[in-house]
Amino acid sequence: MDDVYKTSMELHKKHRGKIAMMSIVPLKNRKDLSIAYTPGVAEPSRQIAKNPQLSFDLTWRGRTVAVVSDGSAVLGLGNIGPEAALPVMEGKALLLKEFGGVDAVPIVVATQDGPEIIQFVKTIAPSFAGINLEDISAPRCFQIEEELQNIGIPVFHDDQHGTAIVVSAALRNAAKVVNKPYESLRVVIVGAGAAGLAVARMILGLSCSAYVCQRIPGLRAVKDVIVVDREGALFTGREGQNIYKQAIAGISNTEKRKGRLEEIIRGADAVIGVSGPDLIKGDMIKKMAPHPIVFAMANPQPEIMPKEALAAGAAIVASGRSDFPNQINNVLAFPGVFRAVVKGRLTAITQRMKENAADALAHLVTNPTAENIIPDPFFSNLAEHVADAIIASQ
Amino acid sequence: MDDVYKTSMELHKKHRGKIAMMSIVPLKNRKDLSIAYTPGVAEPSRQIAKNPQLSFDLTWRGRTVAVVSDGSAVLGLGNIGPEAALPVMEGKALLLKEFGGVDAVPIVVATQDGPEIIQFVKTIAPSFAGINLEDISAPRCFQIEEELQNIGIPVFHDDQHGTAIVVSAALRNAAKVVNKPYESLRVVIVGAGAAGLAVARMILGLSCSAYVCQRIPGLRAVKDVIVVDREGALFTGREGQNIYKQAIAGISNTEKRKGRLEEIIRGADAVIGVSGPDLIKGDMIKKMAPHPIVFAMANPQPEIMPKEALAAGAAIVASGRSDFPNQINNVLAFPGVFRAVVKGRLTAITQRMKENAADALAHLVTNPTAENIIPDPFFSNLAEHVADAIIASQ
Repeated sequence: MDDVYKTSMELHKKHRGKIAMMSIVPLKNRKDLSIAYTPGVAEPSRQIAKNPQLSFDLTWRGRTVAVVSDGSAVLGLGNIGPEAALPVMEGKALLLKEFGGVDAVPIVVATQDGPEIIQFVKTIAPSFAGINLEDISAPRCFQIEEELQNIGIPVFHDDQHGTAIVVSAALRNAAKVVNKPYESLRVVIVGAGAAGLAVARMILGLSCSAYVCQRIPGLRAVKDVIVVDREGALFTGREGQNIYKQAIAGISNTEKRKGRLEEIIRGADAVIGVSGPDLIKGDMIKKMAPHPIVFAMANPQPEIMPKEALAAGAAIVASGRSDFPNQINNVLAFPGVFRAVVKGRLTAITQRMKENAADALAHLVTNPTAENIIPDPFFSNLAEHVADAIIASQ
Repeated sequence: MDDVYKTSMELHKKHRGKIAMMSIVPLKNRKDLSIAYTPGVAEPSRQIAKNPQLSFDLTWRGRTVAVVSDGSAVLGLGNIGPEAALPVMEGKALLLKEFGGVDAVPIVVATQDGPEIIQFVKTIAPSFAGINLEDISAPRCFQIEEELQNIGIPVFHDDQHGTAIVVSAALRNAAKVVNKPYESLRVVIVGAGAAGLAVARMILGLSCSAYVCQRIPGLRAVKDVIVVDREGALFTGREGQNIYKQAIAGISNTEKRKGRLEEIIRGADAVIGVSGPDLIKGDMIKKMAPHPIVFAMANPQPEIMPKEALAAGAAIVASGRSDFPNQINNVLAFPGVFRAVVKGRLTAITQRMKENAADALAHLVTNPTAENIIPDPFFSNLAEHVADAIIASQ
């Protein structure tokens, strides 16, 4: 691990980052200048003034998104602030370009105030085809995203929905491998932050506002989900739950079970960790239903090491790490999502689109096995497959 | 002219704009992914968290600026709004890259409220090495820029200072050609918007706040300036002047002349038009001092056509157009200014830096003549020369 950090530092220092701007039109003489800039540029400007939607056809806007973060919840690092989040956002822009063919600009903001971030994104919206919110801590991220759902371009919080799409895809194939119907699965989610609540919403097929969640008819959904946080299982009426936890509690945990993870996990078909190191123990896995599915996605230190989970009887283990089989990584989803945004000129990403993205992702693995439930990030044309499934959902 | 508009539309449509993102690091396999993204990226993030200034060394921030506009005062087009301003801002980003080697992101904002724009720029500041404000109307632009002078990175309103630098450079060489000392020139400026007031501040060597202007010791300055707007000459105590016009009035027009352009222009050595079509007449030029200098920079239709100005006795004529000699265009200044920002890691652009930039620009023309008072935009290494002069001023 130390090696990868050292190499990464050298790479970042040598190039001053990972992305750059390039010109895609000639600028060699006065004539080029008169076409790309003044006076010629007045004509596309005049046309867009008449119809602002033409900005998608006549400028880079139509193929460009912003990756926006306040640096409050950077994976594995926590609240490190905007400047320190920039290498991560620049990395996402790199991946969007390389995997999704999408131009992306990393933008970090000097505020962690929810309403200010909402105002900021509204203000910058005319510049881009979509906004990827990133590494913004819960519960602020839920309100921020909700208030940005009708600004004319899609706003997609990757830590929620990217994670939910990939987890849902992996869970579909894991169910196949252990020969259980996806719809009958009983799932325990460890962690009730951005990722945990979004995974719950996704696999239950929910549409949620701040105060209430309801099933979306026609979406595939698992039988039951129990979300567990530091205090134990979420259930209706539990004290000290924020509104987003309350909303999920109202539609999950149908048996209203109470208690901590070691009790709640009893009889579960799958446990999905999106929390922190070492929170799942081998003894817990032994209490699960036969052929337990274990996704331990805390990064870099998972909830349980894959080897230990297997030793405790797990039938399938996935993690967020690249050095074990079944790496559950958002990079499988977000380049395809934003490919769809620019290719389909979407104005929103619906729950049905996410559902179909997860389904498309799952189907890229033709014969799922215990060590191969999701595709590799370098799977050929992966983003295009995901994008086409999303566009077809419109 | 119609041809250039048609060609420009075709170019913009074909490429969807003029710029794109590119990767500058490899991303071909899992190892590359682990270095550019997770887990390797955690290390530069950790280092920047300890010292945010390292964001200039370890991310693209150190070589990247934003071109920010609200589309309220686009050259020749007026208040066309953010989307319609995007082709112009993308053009500026293209020029910054091609002429200045600076990565630049075009950003248009969904507000024309001064305080909201100020807040927006403060919020986005951690993402960039500098901000080029563009096509924001007067008098809001003055307050916006003034309130953004101490945010850690330079904020440079090109319509003011880019114009002022190039006009000042051209005026120096024009004075040489007509054999008058620059310092003795009496100048009339037609137009009291962003460009007009900035040119006045620049050639008088002033430092201005909202309410007062004062001479900066040691800067070259012309003898007297009179700024004329629609109501006639600005002078101390004139009614209906905004605070920025009042501040200039307090230090210009030393003889407190009153009246409209046709009276004020009498005896002037130079007239600088930054206003609108056809406001300068041949008869006015005939009233100027011998060997009159005429800069008619309204674009695309100048205050007086060069041919007409010459027929009326102008010794030197410059315009904003590329189809006549002496094109006064901001492209001679802003790529060098932002080259300096990233190369010198500047935190502000001082009046002395602008002065030295103008001087460097003027000196690139080794033997000024009536038809050659400023360099061509394609002059070899032009931006580097300007940048070095700015950096040397620190």
